[in-house]
Amino acid sequence: MAGERSWWGWGAPERALSDTECAELGALLPGLPDRPLPVPRLADLALPPVRIRPPAALAGTMTDSPRERAGHTYGKAYRDVVRALRGDLAAAPDLVARPRGEADVRDVLDWAERSDIAVVPYGAGSSVVGGVEYRGDAHRGVVSLDLSVLDRVLEVDRTSRAARIQAGVLGPALEERLRPHGLTLRHFPQSFEYSTVGGWLATRSGGHYATVLTHIDDLVESLRVVTPAGVAESLRVPGSGAGPSPDRFFLGSEGALGVITEAWLRLQDRPRYKASASVLFDGFAAGAEAVRAIAQSGLNPANCRLLDAGEAALSGAARDGRSVLVLGVESAHGPVDGRLAELTALAADHGGRLRAPAGADGGGSGASAAEAWRSAFLRMPYVRDGLARMSAISETFETACTWDRLPGLLDAVRTELAAAVRKATGSPGMINCRFTHVYPDGPAPYFTVIAAGRPGDELAVWDEIKAAAMEILAARGATVTHHHAVGRDHLPGYRRQIPAPYALALRAAKQALDPEGVLNPGVLGLG
Amino acid sequence: MAGERSWWGWGAPERALSDTECAELGALLPGLPDRPLPVPRLADLALPPVRIRPPAALAGTMTDSPRERAGHTYGKAYRDVVRALRGDLAAAPDLVARPRGEADVRDVLDWAERSDIAVVPYGAGSSVVGGVEYRGDAHRGVVSLDLSVLDRVLEVDRTSRAARIQAGVLGPALEERLRPHGLTLRHFPQSFEYSTVGGWLATRSGGHYATVLTHIDDLVESLRVVTPAGVAESLRVPGSGAGPSPDRFFLGSEGALGVITEAWLRLQDRPRYKASASVLFDGFAAGAEAVRAIAQSGLNPANCRLLDAGEAALSGAARDGRSVLVLGVESAHGPVDGRLAELTALAADHGGRLRAPAGADGGGSGASAAEAWRSAFLRMPYVRDGLARMSAISETFETACTWDRLPGLLDAVRTELAAAVRKATGSPGMINCRFTHVYPDGPAPYFTVIAAGRPGDELAVWDEIKAAAMEILAARGATVTHHHAVGRDHLPGYRRQIPAPYALALRAAKQALDPEGVLNPGVLGLG
Repeated sequence: MAGERSWWGWGAPERALSDTECAELGALLPGLPDRPLPVPRLADLALPPVRIRPPAALAGTMTDSPRERAGHTYGKAYRDVVRALRGDLAAAPDLVARPRGEADVRDVLDWAERSDIAVVPYGAGSSVVGGVEYRGDAHRGVVSLDLSVLDRVLEVDRTSRAARIQAGVLGPALEERLRPHGLTLRHFPQSFEYSTVGGWLATRSGGHYATVLTHIDDLVESLRVVTPAGVAESLRVPGSGAGPSPDRFFLGSEGALGVITEAWLRLQDRPRYKASASVLFDGFAAGAEAVRAIAQSGLNPANCRLLDAGEAALSGAARDGRSVLVLGVESAHGPVDGRLAELTALAADHGGRLRAPAGADGGGSGASAAEAWRSAFLRMPYVRDGLARMSAISETFETACTWDRLPGLLDAVRTELAAAVRKATGSPGMINCRFTHVYPDGPAPYFTVIAAGRPGDELAVWDEIKAAAMEILAARGATVTHHHAVGRDHLPGYRRQIPAPYALALRAAKQALDPEGVLNPGVLGLG
Repeated sequence: MAGERSWWGWGAPERALSDTECAELGALLPGLPDRPLPVPRLADLALPPVRIRPPAALAGTMTDSPRERAGHTYGKAYRDVVRALRGDLAAAPDLVARPRGEADVRDVLDWAERSDIAVVPYGAGSSVVGGVEYRGDAHRGVVSLDLSVLDRVLEVDRTSRAARIQAGVLGPALEERLRPHGLTLRHFPQSFEYSTVGGWLATRSGGHYATVLTHIDDLVESLRVVTPAGVAESLRVPGSGAGPSPDRFFLGSEGALGVITEAWLRLQDRPRYKASASVLFDGFAAGAEAVRAIAQSGLNPANCRLLDAGEAALSGAARDGRSVLVLGVESAHGPVDGRLAELTALAADHGGRLRAPAGADGGGSGASAAEAWRSAFLRMPYVRDGLARMSAISETFETACTWDRLPGLLDAVRTELAAAVRKATGSPGMINCRFTHVYPDGPAPYFTVIAAGRPGDELAVWDEIKAAAMEILAARGATVTHHHAVGRDHLPGYRRQIPAPYALALRAAKQALDPEGVLNPGVLGLG
């Protein structure tokens, strides 16, 4: 089990930035306060009164402790952290339930249906889109359904390379249990340490691997989902053409159509051969062309992250204004150096220069740049919390679009979004871009916006920037989310994107499965 | 455009087996008549009276010609061919509509909704599961909605390697239009010449390629679907995590949820490097182990078909009682001989012997065995029609299961299904197996059953064998279909497989999109 988790911010409290580190970070942006906002003491905070009591049979699985309620109030979006720092816990659930098994999940849903109680399925709470936060007051009470006790790997099929896994297991625990079998799920979202298999499935998470098997969707053999209308368990097969896929219907349903309790997932042999390199480009556009060639080459690197100059500087991968392409190749079966050479040759064809091993250009050697980037990658959420404590605005949004639309999208972000940031904050701020995943037909760009906020008014500023970002994505034919899900924060963009008849069909399906509307009301615009 | 198509059997009339060829084929099985059933003359057949008239605005797009009605009565399942040969056309649609564009499709649906008329979307009619055959009499009339006029490639995006393609284009015409761009969809189902893009999408077809991108599902960027509740067009993106995938909802919906009119599909560069080999195994089980190693190796051959002894003999790939593994590797980018060598080495590790180039073992050289197999593959449907004319029973069924379940499935087919064949036909018949597709977690076995029938009673015998096959698949945890779809013939197996709450959700979605129940009533158990 992981240790104690922060109730207000990302991950482990002991890994949060210190006050000094926060202040140093804040000094990099003009116009911020000298000192960070203090983290409030939980004991000082007022939680809303508990409105409901658990039924006797479930009392042992539920708690109304303030610490648990506070910790389950929000996900980990910037706006969640800001509200927690301000001590605003008005959205706290009445109860936190930790079912001991699937029977408890069914019992909670039965009780909720009878009692007009909303149930918000909760993995480890890493949502950055308002996915685990109940909004409104249409129900008599709210229960956060924390699946962390369902944390077992129930079966491993070495022959087919698959495992039956409970929804509540966290990333590191899962990999630890698979390691003795020589297997790995090889799904490493940035939230890996603090997110669960069930959360990945419910939100269609993207792994850290850049090509081919990125979305968790492709790793699913079958799902087991508890709905108010019964348990849906799909047949475990490597492929099927029997009607519209039941798994794809529940993948991405964000707890609104059912509670995923377990899944058979496809595994891989653990890689034994690895090689990485980093390549420098004078401009992002040239780097993007190289990445397109690589994505269409069939060489399928495990890592293929293009960082623009700002992103490279922020992560320490390069500080000379150039863009950096971090390439990685892996195999369980044989040496990969030849493949890496083919990749770097492709990059060179597009003007990329392989970083000298000696690291004379200010960013370390190729391999160590990759390492530096990975370590910065895992540290990013803590940095984001530090920025929030300094009253800076920090927004990340990610998308995917086809290659033909990429120049227009990048241009719109660099002009229209920059204008929106200036308008909202009074300063130009910083907008960085990297590709987190790439496909033969297009990349998944990830944007980071950092700007001085207006202390006390951060949420309004953030909302303004978020709205502008969603508008740009919709206008440029890019998805509102590639792997962060929709939740509640992405609803405006999602509503523009979802085909109207499909929205109608989803609502009808929701009504059939959850007639009382108790399951995570509001996500995906359902209920 | 393809030439005239057979109204009663597969493909081009001029490629059907002659009477003499039918008789020679029949002589291979004991107990069959000496001469084939004659193919009836259409002019001699009684079609049911036409019950409805097209509205004036659509009159130019509809016909009630007997030839058109006869040609649109059935798909191409064995039971379809047998009924056609008997002159049983009781299920003929009243009208055949050929919309000139999407507006016509909408108008047909509007009219059908107002007039209680069933609409059966029709690509090229290659369904082998009763997918295009209206059954029952719950509607005032039936229209076969033939999309063959919508046969254009509307846009090609060379940068992203994708094209916007109308639903009615046939396989060869599609590839012909992509060739000048250096691109290919590289989706080659056995029905390739006589099936359409829309049919592939509606039925989740499997390409001829054995690994990685097999199902058409993975090639879809976006779909455009006309439903009675409006047109659903999904956003064209390389990947998305915005809610349950709208495309996956319509893929496999078999015309029951909407009429797919166009799609953006992912393309590939045309392969320039190819190599193939065939490997012999003393037993199918050893071959299966080799295939598992290959499927889990990450080497991703383009072709990886394991034929058991009977299948190898039937297709001419080997006649000495051994199993044959046909391997093929392709690339648009560089030589593939090294990869082929790695694959044959893996096969050798599992007891496979590379076929000598000289072909001294009775089946030709490695490359020519692959060629022989491919040509036999495309000829199979015509042979099946010849068998039907000889009153033999010919049933093919295909599935997918995880590797751990494969031995149990193969055992059940070879014992229980063989017993069912003996019981139904009075003779042992022949049951062959091949793998058509393989995944890291399991193969897609394809079974061919050929037996002497009971002349005049073929349909009852076939139904009995089909029911036994579906029972075995369900009992052994294998899907009722990997790429033939569900239609109406696979309903008993599908009902055992579909999670009950998901069936509920699909029915609710169907009701929302098609409240009058006019779209292909009965497929997937919907409507």
